[in-house]
Amino acid sequence: MDSLKQGWFSEVNDLWPGMSLSLEVQEVLHKEKSSFQDIMVLQTKSHGKALILDGIIQCTESDEFAYQEMISFLPLCCHPSPKRVLIVGGGDGGVAREVAKHPGVEQIDQVEIDSQVIEVSKKYLPSMAVGFTHPKLSLHVEDGFKFMQQHEQAFDVVITDSSDPIGPAVSLFQESYFTLMRRALRPGGIVCSQGGTVWANAEHVAQTLAHCKATFPSAAYAFATVPTYPTGQIGFVLGSMNEENNFKDPVRSFSEAELESMQLRYYTSDIHRAAFTLPRFAQKILASSSSTNASDRNNNPGDL
Amino acid sequence: MDSLKQGWFSEVNDLWPGMSLSLEVQEVLHKEKSSFQDIMVLQTKSHGKALILDGIIQCTESDEFAYQEMISFLPLCCHPSPKRVLIVGGGDGGVAREVAKHPGVEQIDQVEIDSQVIEVSKKYLPSMAVGFTHPKLSLHVEDGFKFMQQHEQAFDVVITDSSDPIGPAVSLFQESYFTLMRRALRPGGIVCSQGGTVWANAEHVAQTLAHCKATFPSAAYAFATVPTYPTGQIGFVLGSMNEENNFKDPVRSFSEAELESMQLRYYTSDIHRAAFTLPRFAQKILASSSSTNASDRNNNPGDL
Repeated sequence: MDSLKQGWFSEVNDLWPGMSLSLEVQEVLHKEKSSFQDIMVLQTKSHGKALILDGIIQCTESDEFAYQEMISFLPLCCHPSPKRVLIVGGGDGGVAREVAKHPGVEQIDQVEIDSQVIEVSKKYLPSMAVGFTHPKLSLHVEDGFKFMQQHEQAFDVVITDSSDPIGPAVSLFQESYFTLMRRALRPGGIVCSQGGTVWANAEHVAQTLAHCKATFPSAAYAFATVPTYPTGQIGFVLGSMNEENNFKDPVRSFSEAELESMQLRYYTSDIHRAAFTLPRFAQKILASSSSTNASDRNNNPGDL
Repeated sequence: MDSLKQGWFSEVNDLWPGMSLSLEVQEVLHKEKSSFQDIMVLQTKSHGKALILDGIIQCTESDEFAYQEMISFLPLCCHPSPKRVLIVGGGDGGVAREVAKHPGVEQIDQVEIDSQVIEVSKKYLPSMAVGFTHPKLSLHVEDGFKFMQQHEQAFDVVITDSSDPIGPAVSLFQESYFTLMRRALRPGGIVCSQGGTVWANAEHVAQTLAHCKATFPSAAYAFATVPTYPTGQIGFVLGSMNEENNFKDPVRSFSEAELESMQLRYYTSDIHRAAFTLPRFAQKILASSSSTNASDRNNNPGDL
């Protein structure tokens, strides 16, 4: 499979071997090589514009809301008072857009390493990049590791909106990163990271969750359906400094009128609860991820 | 996109325009044109064997369990005593395999119109076709409409495991079919039909649910994640002769030991409850599907 031919873009990657999602392309709007990655913006036929980094679909205008709302509101609604929030990554601006909607949030810092992703998003994806314009937001173009090292006990919530665990983002899935996040949290703080899917990468999800469990008093995995991500869904690994946090029951609920005024299209309190309910095979795999030694498991449903 | 070239099979269909899932193929094991449809069996690289009808993936060995368990156990566990079950379609045998596991089921009739799908499944997909060997099952190779017309008030549960609403299966999504199923049900009976996905076909799902609501005292929509179906999920439309049926709370729950002995890999009582919890945009679309006049809505999230 070539990645771009005969009017279709195909996403082929060893993280989900033997399967590939293709989107019909009307126009390649932008293509460049930044200091960190290949950046491409496509005008697709049926999914609006799509942002592609290193050949992997990061978001499309048709379904990005599902991911952005869930990676934001799952941790925010698990925290009784999420005043100060750090976003690591998230260069398209969609997570900032969602975090800024939460009425309890007072200050958002975002640290994105690749200024070109920000610029390209401002130009081609204004419905996401609108997040950068919010007065609550301070945007820092630098390395997330370094930024967190300089901010001890500073944040109530840290959200890591990263690409997949290959290339520049691989370190964001390791135990040292969870330790760094813990250090950056205020008491009672919560982290939420993009965590892959149990359908294609059960072993990897289990390992990331194990790192989180090894670092935080409580941890959990949730998922959202997002058609243009591999296997049609994506997961989130959450950790909390509060050992009483069960994650599944949001401490903050929004009325229908509040959801409407925040223009939420995916998140509700019921969706929050359901997101932590996994198929039995996934439950079993993740229940055993109690240590960092998860690499001896290899029981994806797809491994035949 | 050609459907089979350079070692990949690509699923292209107007039901999900502008997107296509591809599976890497090691070998085309079987290819024929039956009286009803094109039948193909592929040995894929990472998803086991795949059954393709008229160019659409019906099931792969890697994830078929999710679909087969959910279309079977959702209605079975909503019924207090599902003794007699009818399966319409389901020519691979997987639904029969699951229905036969339920300890309350005494007799299963299955009516599949295409004998070649049954024969091909017996030869190439024995882990599914094992369902045909169960002593509780009577298999009828004929038209499901005719079979039901001859069986009034005969079944506690009718499960329709059909292909998508194009070609031979289109009539299985119309109101006349729901009326026919209602007539075939015993008092308190339940139906469950394959119902498409809100992510690609919200309008169609709303219309099918409207037909069900117009025919049954209570009706609902649920979904399961299945990576090799379009958008990574599939839905189910359920109707009940019992107007008190809320669907979401199963009347029959299984212990962990029972789930293990039935070898269920997807279904649990918690998954049953979560399956009826939809993203807010889908809730809103389906909440308005209270009449059969659903065709004036066209608000797929993907319609930009």
